[in-house]
Amino acid sequence: MAGSQIHKVVFFFFFILISHTIVSAKIKLGWSRKAATEAEGVAIIYCSGHGQAYIDGDIVDGKPSCECNTCYAGDDCSIFLSNCTANAESGDPLFLKPYWEKHAADSAVVVAGWHRMSYSTTGKNYITTELERHIRMLHHGVGNAVTDDKFIVFGAGSTQLLYALVHALAASLNSSSPASVVASVPYYAPYRQQTEFFDSKLAEWRGVTSEWVNASKGSTNNFIEFVTSPNNPDGLLKKALLNGSLTINDHAYYWPHFTAISEPVDEDVMLFTTSKLTGHAGSRFGWALIKDEDVYNRTVRYMELNTEGTSRETQLRMLKLYKVILAELGGGKGDIFTFGYKTMRERWIKLNQVVSLSKRFSLQKLPTSQYCNYFNTTRDPSPAYGWLKCEMEEDEDCDAVLRAGGLSGRSGTIYSEDKKHVRVSLIKSQDDFNQLITKLTALVNQTKTTALN
Amino acid sequence: MAGSQIHKVVFFFFFILISHTIVSAKIKLGWSRKAATEAEGVAIIYCSGHGQAYIDGDIVDGKPSCECNTCYAGDDCSIFLSNCTANAESGDPLFLKPYWEKHAADSAVVVAGWHRMSYSTTGKNYITTELERHIRMLHHGVGNAVTDDKFIVFGAGSTQLLYALVHALAASLNSSSPASVVASVPYYAPYRQQTEFFDSKLAEWRGVTSEWVNASKGSTNNFIEFVTSPNNPDGLLKKALLNGSLTINDHAYYWPHFTAISEPVDEDVMLFTTSKLTGHAGSRFGWALIKDEDVYNRTVRYMELNTEGTSRETQLRMLKLYKVILAELGGGKGDIFTFGYKTMRERWIKLNQVVSLSKRFSLQKLPTSQYCNYFNTTRDPSPAYGWLKCEMEEDEDCDAVLRAGGLSGRSGTIYSEDKKHVRVSLIKSQDDFNQLITKLTALVNQTKTTALN
Repeated sequence: MAGSQIHKVVFFFFFILISHTIVSAKIKLGWSRKAATEAEGVAIIYCSGHGQAYIDGDIVDGKPSCECNTCYAGDDCSIFLSNCTANAESGDPLFLKPYWEKHAADSAVVVAGWHRMSYSTTGKNYITTELERHIRMLHHGVGNAVTDDKFIVFGAGSTQLLYALVHALAASLNSSSPASVVASVPYYAPYRQQTEFFDSKLAEWRGVTSEWVNASKGSTNNFIEFVTSPNNPDGLLKKALLNGSLTINDHAYYWPHFTAISEPVDEDVMLFTTSKLTGHAGSRFGWALIKDEDVYNRTVRYMELNTEGTSRETQLRMLKLYKVILAELGGGKGDIFTFGYKTMRERWIKLNQVVSLSKRFSLQKLPTSQYCNYFNTTRDPSPAYGWLKCEMEEDEDCDAVLRAGGLSGRSGTIYSEDKKHVRVSLIKSQDDFNQLITKLTALVNQTKTTALN
Repeated sequence: MAGSQIHKVVFFFFFILISHTIVSAKIKLGWSRKAATEAEGVAIIYCSGHGQAYIDGDIVDGKPSCECNTCYAGDDCSIFLSNCTANAESGDPLFLKPYWEKHAADSAVVVAGWHRMSYSTTGKNYITTELERHIRMLHHGVGNAVTDDKFIVFGAGSTQLLYALVHALAASLNSSSPASVVASVPYYAPYRQQTEFFDSKLAEWRGVTSEWVNASKGSTNNFIEFVTSPNNPDGLLKKALLNGSLTINDHAYYWPHFTAISEPVDEDVMLFTTSKLTGHAGSRFGWALIKDEDVYNRTVRYMELNTEGTSRETQLRMLKLYKVILAELGGGKGDIFTFGYKTMRERWIKLNQVVSLSKRFSLQKLPTSQYCNYFNTTRDPSPAYGWLKCEMEEDEDCDAVLRAGGLSGRSGTIYSEDKKHVRVSLIKSQDDFNQLITKLTALVNQTKTTALN
């Protein structure tokens, strides 16, 4: 009996041990374990929810240190600097970071030491075929752009492609004089800065589109018009204004985070960037959809001579991120656009609430209750930026007014608009947004107090 | 007694189970496991040693397919296509792939979904401080460049930096006329192609350096001279030829793989690229060392308007790779330069053996027994390319001769040299090199047979 009991006990434990071993064996990792362990070890470094440690961060006490959000300090970012200036300047799309933290397992990628060392990859022109395919699926799934009859060129953000396209379109005009490049105020400054700085014989900056609208017929044939829709900074939907000009349609913000998707856009030259789709500005990845083969070939040649394509590890990572988005598409809880719209909408409502407390400031007016084909319902505005205007006569330099109140935005002059306007970014981290609201509330209350005196 | 035995048995198994659990727990991975499992699963896909499957490869039967080396085909790359043309064209540095396969655990990197989404990173101008620090350590450890008094700018390969520097140097000349850009024949074609294609008002291509050597004093003050050392294609060490010109010193090949390190180079503007250091051409990563702050600032501005820096996941990966190299530095068995020199040296010897079998072809002459400060001993040539010359009068177009023999190289004309020369790449995969040798041997034997008839 005792022997039988021993056998039973032995058998029982043996069974558990074997099962345990089988499970362990199944999940046993080899060469990738070290990197995985390192990444997880860095991810759990505690930064009080106000910062993040990264593998390639500055080393303090033998490990990567916390990189604190603006106005936070200390080893673990736990110290709030109350006199600190809130920063609403850059279009750093960190509002999407929590989304990727929630999708940690699906969005991580392991890059092997020997991954795609070659110049060439699966597709032509330094393009991974699978990534191109997923980008087309993404546009199709979201319904924001027609890709069927378009070529795709990858770039280091849309930044690189903006000027590649100016160059390609200008060359395609085959004119003896340089192409005239224009944009509508307020516009994203690099359109002008690039054309002026790179100073090619092919293209010249000619300023504001509206000044050429009434030009005599044919005189704008040699023009390249930037059309940004939704527009940066004000979020308005835009159309080309000039007849006969070539257009570069910058659709960086044409995603359900920021605007209703009323139709798939279908222009000859369209630009998108992962920065405002997934929030990975640091990856430097964007793409152009191009209809004309000649313009496509010229753009490809530009990319070849400029950088020989975009980083292959970035392409690998983008593929992984787009797979996550595609798997969750459809407006459900795990959908990045549900998350993005919800976040941006809440921020826009809050910003409007604060601004409406006084008459000192106003915000751009955006159409309400637009039908969105993606969400299959109407939706309200959720722009990436507040295009703030100082309404009081004495507040001539709105940027200076905000800075005096401890809030830094981007002056309207950067967008070739007047000094009464300032762009405040709503797409940064929650900490940044909270600080923006705090400082703006104080400025608004200041006015009310002043008004009462 | 039986009860005591049961207790002992229970205790024994319990102890084993607990130990087992502790070990498992210690190595238990969370969110990174899925990506790690995927990467290892793809890495073991069998491609007969003549190809590789990658995570982002084309999908066949639900998994990434083998991407076969040139002249290999089939699902598992096991079919050798004997009538296939050997490809010795590109400078694809795949000779280093086996090195990274041997260092799989140390060179892998896990990129978390939320890794460095921001535009900004630890350093200024989109540069990760730790990576910059490791690059300086690498130059110091190898002894190939003085970095102490230099600024560093990162680029998408040296490709992007080549023209960024032309632009920055040209602007720094503050001249009313465009800068004249020149290089010594044979030269790397993009020097000319970029200057002509980007067509800036700041700089013009003025051809071959030697044509300006005897120009009157002061007339080359407005010149920018490309100096490539070791030179691509011929591997010779070069110095600037013009007095008073600005120089861009392209040291892409100044690593112990390819040449003796006789001294640390110390010019005002120097260029390096990971492509010819680690072999990661696809990563698009290079850097410039710049002495003058004004030139540095102009280069940084170029990078900002062109691409807003280089991919942050690429920077993360580069840091990991450079750490591996640094850890193994010193000429030992695990040293990448030991591996690189050994491989390149063997290939150079083999190529010379074949070429010396007839008088049909000749190769560039490189100095033997150079003292290398890095290896602390003399070493023999191990260039990246064979600069092949067709010696027979009737072989006017050497490239055509080779192609007729099933071997494609790059015609001398691409390097602004004559048709009698062809560059054959020695830095590709072992398969590529073997095919080059096979085809060249046949061409050499063909001559001998013809001579006998």
